[in-house]
Amino acid sequence: MFEDKNTTKTPLESLGEFALIDALTHTIKLQNKSSLLGVGDDAAVIDHGSKQTVISTDLLVEGVHFDLSYMPLKHLGYKAVMVNLSDLYAMNAIPTQITVSLAVSNRFTLEALEELYSGIALACKNYKVDLVGGDTTSSTTGLTLSITAVGMVSKGKLVTRSGAKENDLLVVSGDLGAAYTGLQILEREKAVFKVNPNNQPDLSSYTYSIERQLKPEARKDIIELLEELKIVPTSMIDISDGLSSEILHLSKASRVGFQLYEEKLPMDPEVSLICEEFKFNSTTAVLNGGEDYELLFTISQKDFDKVKNHPLLTVIGHAVDPKAGCQLVNGLGHQIELTAQGWQNFNP
Amino acid sequence: MFEDKNTTKTPLESLGEFALIDALTHTIKLQNKSSLLGVGDDAAVIDHGSKQTVISTDLLVEGVHFDLSYMPLKHLGYKAVMVNLSDLYAMNAIPTQITVSLAVSNRFTLEALEELYSGIALACKNYKVDLVGGDTTSSTTGLTLSITAVGMVSKGKLVTRSGAKENDLLVVSGDLGAAYTGLQILEREKAVFKVNPNNQPDLSSYTYSIERQLKPEARKDIIELLEELKIVPTSMIDISDGLSSEILHLSKASRVGFQLYEEKLPMDPEVSLICEEFKFNSTTAVLNGGEDYELLFTISQKDFDKVKNHPLLTVIGHAVDPKAGCQLVNGLGHQIELTAQGWQNFNP
Repeated sequence: MFEDKNTTKTPLESLGEFALIDALTHTIKLQNKSSLLGVGDDAAVIDHGSKQTVISTDLLVEGVHFDLSYMPLKHLGYKAVMVNLSDLYAMNAIPTQITVSLAVSNRFTLEALEELYSGIALACKNYKVDLVGGDTTSSTTGLTLSITAVGMVSKGKLVTRSGAKENDLLVVSGDLGAAYTGLQILEREKAVFKVNPNNQPDLSSYTYSIERQLKPEARKDIIELLEELKIVPTSMIDISDGLSSEILHLSKASRVGFQLYEEKLPMDPEVSLICEEFKFNSTTAVLNGGEDYELLFTISQKDFDKVKNHPLLTVIGHAVDPKAGCQLVNGLGHQIELTAQGWQNFNP
Repeated sequence: MFEDKNTTKTPLESLGEFALIDALTHTIKLQNKSSLLGVGDDAAVIDHGSKQTVISTDLLVEGVHFDLSYMPLKHLGYKAVMVNLSDLYAMNAIPTQITVSLAVSNRFTLEALEELYSGIALACKNYKVDLVGGDTTSSTTGLTLSITAVGMVSKGKLVTRSGAKENDLLVVSGDLGAAYTGLQILEREKAVFKVNPNNQPDLSSYTYSIERQLKPEARKDIIELLEELKIVPTSMIDISDGLSSEILHLSKASRVGFQLYEEKLPMDPEVSLICEEFKFNSTTAVLNGGEDYELLFTISQKDFDKVKNHPLLTVIGHAVDPKAGCQLVNGLGHQIELTAQGWQNFNP
């Protein structure tokens, strides 16, 4: 009744997630000296002298980010922590604490929430992170989970999205696309299950993909490896929305273009097989699938020998003049411009 | 389909908010030396040597914590920040940064979210806090807002819920009950508006209460006053759920009882008038109304002269032997045991 009557009404569907964040936060000016880095990277950075505190937060909504019909609550808890830790590793930081806020409807029981927390607790144990706070409340519908992760990084070790230079090498950890193919398998089995609840699915040939979807691991080991190899990446991001989208973020923040080689893209054989089965283009799964939680970073050419042939790292391209944009080079030498087809948040 | 079949099903309604948090977090052990204080106070505390970082988080759900039919979005943004800053002040900390996460359904427009953010930005400006990050996503229904606030406190200045000693004085800032009476007025006007949308409510005699409900202020000034008066409270909490509930928290954490004097309870005259109009007991509004965002703290008797007759502070009772429990003493000298009737989160 007291609500303002705005004359302009811009539907959110007309904006992407990133345009919306820009629209809402572009006027913000930082006032505190300790606020080193604000909106626009994987995490915010707060200065404490020789150490810097890094903070990342994610909100996960039932029906938007997860489907409890195939995502066990324990896995959901584990994955929700991973999503946040991954953001901190993408700043080259070590996570130390998390807070967990929860809104739940009455259809959840205490035992269901204990399942969820057992996944959160396992993630905390495996990654040596403390759950130090949160908020628990009721919701009118479904489950919403908000996790904030806090970490530390020594001065000079912080890596943002904005330091890539022309000719730097573009490197990715692990392999890509499997979380997406895992999701396709789970969605298919859910549809089958709806038709025939007695059907016991044989998922044994899809184990890797399903695990990548249901129980991803944040790449703590890669941060430790970089430390061991004495590499400080010039820029870094984690792959949550999809390789294309993340490359475009690095490109925008660092003001460089990228050339990406299709034949270099690391992929598990299972991903190719599932893509064939579903008649997908596997490169599309790798570029736009998302939820891989691998680290994507740039390094100086002089560090090439340190990463060459490393089983956990693949050089997939390099930074170029920003005028050249971001291009995928396929096996025939053709260039295809990268577009962000990742998770389009407000498009149903 | 892969969900565990738990044999026990404990409905959440059978637990209070605090029992639920206990059930979910009692097994958690802190692993990092920097985790000074975990679940169970107004905020978590992380050690950084001479300074400590304090972190608080709150999740606000449309239809549970706010009603957009009388809460303008700008006010909601402002209040959501206040709720969190209030938690940090309750630790005697100075807020420095916040992150804001948002889940919104498609019924919200960009302009609506800009309204919300203008309230958040105003709160940041007034309290010298930086918005440094967050997450924006879609929801299947309504608006959910998760705010995390980060603050600093010097070593030795941190105040938790657990330091009150027998004979300490119990002090509250400002006055109590008005946020609750404001809510009653707004709910009544909403009901009237539903019947006759052309009715223009005359709310001029309820200004104070409505402002306390729609635009509360966190008590930054009290923290500055305590510094000026050279008082470090022995324990402190902010009043979000209601005075009774908060006294019981201090009692439990500090292992003391409290005697509270009904005639000392600070109340604006408007609160008494509205309570008469609605035929409420005004003491009940003060004890159980909640959302006052005043600070409730204990101080040593030796600090009494510093707070005596201060216009912003009222001594409302004192700490006693834990065996005596928490009692309200009324004008006739009768003792009534305090119970937490505050916001019963999972009871509709």
